[in-house]
Amino acid sequence: MDRTMINQIEKFNNETVCIKGWLHRTRKLSKIAFIQLRDRTGLIQCVVSKDRFEQIKNLKLESILEIIGKVSESTNSTGNYEIQVDSLNILSAVTEDMPIEINTEDMNINIDTELNHRVLSLRNVKNKAIFEIQAQISESFRRFLTSRSFTEIFTSKIVAQGAEGGTALFKVKYFEKDAYLTQSPQFYKQMMVGAGFERVFEVAHVYRAEEHNTVRHLNEYVSMDLEMGFIKDETELIELETQFLKYMLLELKNNYSKQLELLGAELPVIEGKIPCLKLSDAINILKQEYGKNELENDLDPEGEKLISDYVKNKFDSDFVFLTHYPISKRPMYTMPLDTSVTRSFDLIFRGLEITTGGQRINDYNMLKQSMINKGLNPEDFSDYMNVFKYGMPPHGGLAIGLERITCQLLGYRNVRYGSLFPRDRTRVTP
Amino acid sequence: MDRTMINQIEKFNNETVCIKGWLHRTRKLSKIAFIQLRDRTGLIQCVVSKDRFEQIKNLKLESILEIIGKVSESTNSTGNYEIQVDSLNILSAVTEDMPIEINTEDMNINIDTELNHRVLSLRNVKNKAIFEIQAQISESFRRFLTSRSFTEIFTSKIVAQGAEGGTALFKVKYFEKDAYLTQSPQFYKQMMVGAGFERVFEVAHVYRAEEHNTVRHLNEYVSMDLEMGFIKDETELIELETQFLKYMLLELKNNYSKQLELLGAELPVIEGKIPCLKLSDAINILKQEYGKNELENDLDPEGEKLISDYVKNKFDSDFVFLTHYPISKRPMYTMPLDTSVTRSFDLIFRGLEITTGGQRINDYNMLKQSMINKGLNPEDFSDYMNVFKYGMPPHGGLAIGLERITCQLLGYRNVRYGSLFPRDRTRVTP
Repeated sequence: MDRTMINQIEKFNNETVCIKGWLHRTRKLSKIAFIQLRDRTGLIQCVVSKDRFEQIKNLKLESILEIIGKVSESTNSTGNYEIQVDSLNILSAVTEDMPIEINTEDMNINIDTELNHRVLSLRNVKNKAIFEIQAQISESFRRFLTSRSFTEIFTSKIVAQGAEGGTALFKVKYFEKDAYLTQSPQFYKQMMVGAGFERVFEVAHVYRAEEHNTVRHLNEYVSMDLEMGFIKDETELIELETQFLKYMLLELKNNYSKQLELLGAELPVIEGKIPCLKLSDAINILKQEYGKNELENDLDPEGEKLISDYVKNKFDSDFVFLTHYPISKRPMYTMPLDTSVTRSFDLIFRGLEITTGGQRINDYNMLKQSMINKGLNPEDFSDYMNVFKYGMPPHGGLAIGLERITCQLLGYRNVRYGSLFPRDRTRVTP
Repeated sequence: MDRTMINQIEKFNNETVCIKGWLHRTRKLSKIAFIQLRDRTGLIQCVVSKDRFEQIKNLKLESILEIIGKVSESTNSTGNYEIQVDSLNILSAVTEDMPIEINTEDMNINIDTELNHRVLSLRNVKNKAIFEIQAQISESFRRFLTSRSFTEIFTSKIVAQGAEGGTALFKVKYFEKDAYLTQSPQFYKQMMVGAGFERVFEVAHVYRAEEHNTVRHLNEYVSMDLEMGFIKDETELIELETQFLKYMLLELKNNYSKQLELLGAELPVIEGKIPCLKLSDAINILKQEYGKNELENDLDPEGEKLISDYVKNKFDSDFVFLTHYPISKRPMYTMPLDTSVTRSFDLIFRGLEITTGGQRINDYNMLKQSMINKGLNPEDFSDYMNVFKYGMPPHGGLAIGLERITCQLLGYRNVRYGSLFPRDRTRVTP
C-alpha cells in the first residue's frame, strides 16, 4: 500500500491510508490510546483500541511506525482528522529514552545542549521550520539571479592566499604545500566577471579563523555571493539587493506562511526604496540621538542596533544601507569615491550587518597602488592581478550571510540557530 | 543610453544601439576596419570608417569598448547583422598582448598552459559554454529534487573524522585542534534524514587527499548529493536517478542547444530504463567478450570503458548501472543484500563512473557490527551512531560528481576541463 503524507490526509476522509513516521507523543486512557505520528509534512492523531495495547506497551517515543487505518473527521490538537489504527508495524524500534525532549513547540534547553544533540533537536518542529525557510532563501537568491542572466559558479575553497590580506585564515596541509581555506570567493567572482561571464553568483561555505566566540559569528558560514560587470556604480548593487529582498520576502510569504506563523516571525515590509545613510551621518545621529560618542569610521554591534532603531522609528524600515565607508576600513579592491571614502556599503537588517558590497577597482594601476597603500605586495596576488591587465569592466558585487539573514528574519539572536552544524571557536562536532 | 546585449541586436535593425564588451578580433582594410565585439551573449561585427583609424590604431585585443552605432543587416562570420560605428569609447584599455590566443574556437594549447592562464582561457567561447552547461546541470539537480519535496541542506565541511574510515583526508589546523576537510556529506545527509527531513540534497565541494594525479581525479570537486528516507530498496534510487537524468537532458536540449552544437556534444538518449548489470556479470562479460581476466570484485578504468562499449553495442545505451557490489568493496554504512553483496550500485556513463549510491544500514546494531567488521571503532563515530538509536527509517542515497558528468556529457577526457579552478596533486593556483 502506498504511503500517504500526513498533510494530504484530508483528501482521504473515510478511506484507509498507510502513513509512516516518528512516534511523537502517546496518551493512554483506560480503553483507548492516542498516539501522534510525525512525518516530514506534519502531525496526525491515531486512535489505538485496547486490543493493541500489548503491541504499544513498550514503544518508546521516536520509534518509527507504519500505520494503516481509516481516516475520519475529528477535532484534536493536531488538526481536523484522525486515523483509527487497523494495523501498526514498527519500522525502527527505539529502546532508550530520548536525551532531550523535542515534542513540544519550545524545547527550553540551552543552545549547547541543543547543539550537542543536534540531529535530535532538529526533529523539533520549530527547528525544522528554520531550515525549510533557509532552503527557500538560498533558492530565491539563485532563482532571482538566474532570471537576470547570472551564471552559477563553483570556485575553489582551497587557496594559496587570502582575499583580505592574510589574517584569520585556516591553514590546510595540501600535500607538500601549505594552503588556506578561503575567506570569501571575492577574487574568483571578480575574475569570473573578467573572464567574460559578466554576472556570476555562488552560494558556498567560507571560513574565518577568528578567535572571538560571539552570538554574531561562525567560523564557517554560507555566503551568498554575486558579482556583476558593466555597472554604473554601487547604487546599481543597492537596487539589485533591494529587488532580491522583495522577491525573497514575497516567496516566503506565499509559500511558507505556516512555518513563519509557527516561529512567530513577522516578515519585514519594503516599500519602495530602502533608506540609505552615509556612515558619517549615521555616526552623527548616534552621537546626537543616543549620546554614543566613541564611534569612528565604523559601527560597533551596539551602533548597528541603535541605527536600526532610529531608522525603524523614523522611516518605518527594518533595513538600512550605510554607504560611503572610509577607504581605511575597506579592503584594497574597493573603489574609492574620493580621497577619503569608498563606493561601498553595508546593509543592516534589524540591528545586524548582513551584507557588505560595493563597486570594485577595475583599473590595473589603481589596484596596484591601492595594494601598496594597504601594505600589501602586488606580486603576492599575481593570478588575481593578471585579469586586470587584459580588459576588466567596471564591476561590483555583494555577499549576504545566509545564517545571519535567516536568524534576523526569524528573530533568533544567536546565529548558531541558523546553522545545521555550526562551527565556532570550540565546536567541530557533531 | 542603455546597453543592448549582442544576442538582442536583431530586434533593433535600423536603430541605433549601445553595446559593450571585449574586442575579440580586428581586421583592417585600406578604407574600413572590421572589429568583432564580444559580450556574455555573443559576438557581433562592427564597421569602423577610416576617420576613426587613429582611435583604434593602438587598440589591443581584449580591450573593453562601448560602441554606439546603427544596426543593419549583413552576412558575416558572426551573424546576420552588423553595427556601423558612430562612437567608440574605451572602457578598459589593454596595453600588452594576450599571453594566449583565445579568439578561435579551439585554442590548441595544452591543459597546463590553459589552466595557468585560467581566467583568460575561460574567455574562449567553448570554455564559456562548458560552464554555462554545468550551471544548468546543478540547477536541474536542485529543481528536480525540490519538486519532489527534497530540502536543500548546508552541512559543515570541517569535520572531526572522515566518513569512509580516515584515509585520504586533508588536515586543517582548527585553533588548538586538528580537524579535516570532509570527503563527502555522507554522515550529515543520513543524519538529516533521521532528523526528520526525510529527503535532503546538497551541492557542495568535497575533498580527497589522494596522491594519484590522473585525468579522472580532482582533489576538490563538487558533489551533488541526495539522501532519501522510507525507501523500499536501492531500486528506488536507481529509478530516481534515471528520472533526474532524463529531466536534466531535456532541460539542456531545450535551453542549451547553441552551446551543445558549439561543443560538438551529442546528448545521450535514455529510452525507458537504463540497463542494470550485476557487477559479477559485468566482470564475466569482460572476461568472455574482451579477454580481460584480472578483475575481481571491482572494475578498473579500462573495465569501465569496455563495459560501456558492450552496453552501447548491445542495448544502445550510454549509461549502465552496475549493482550488487561486494561488501568487501563498500563502506561500512552500505546495506548488505546477503552475506556477500550489497544493495549498492555505480552508474557508468560513457566509460566513467559518475555515481555511487545505495541503500544504507538503518539498524543501530547492524551498523555497529558492520563497523567492527571493517576494523573501525564505533565509539569514534558516536555523533553519527546516535541518531540510529532514536528512530532511523530505511533510507539510501547517491552522489553525482558534477565535473565528471559535465565532461562526459561534453566529450572531455580530462576532468579538469569541467572545473573552473581545478585542484590536483600539484595545483593550488590560480
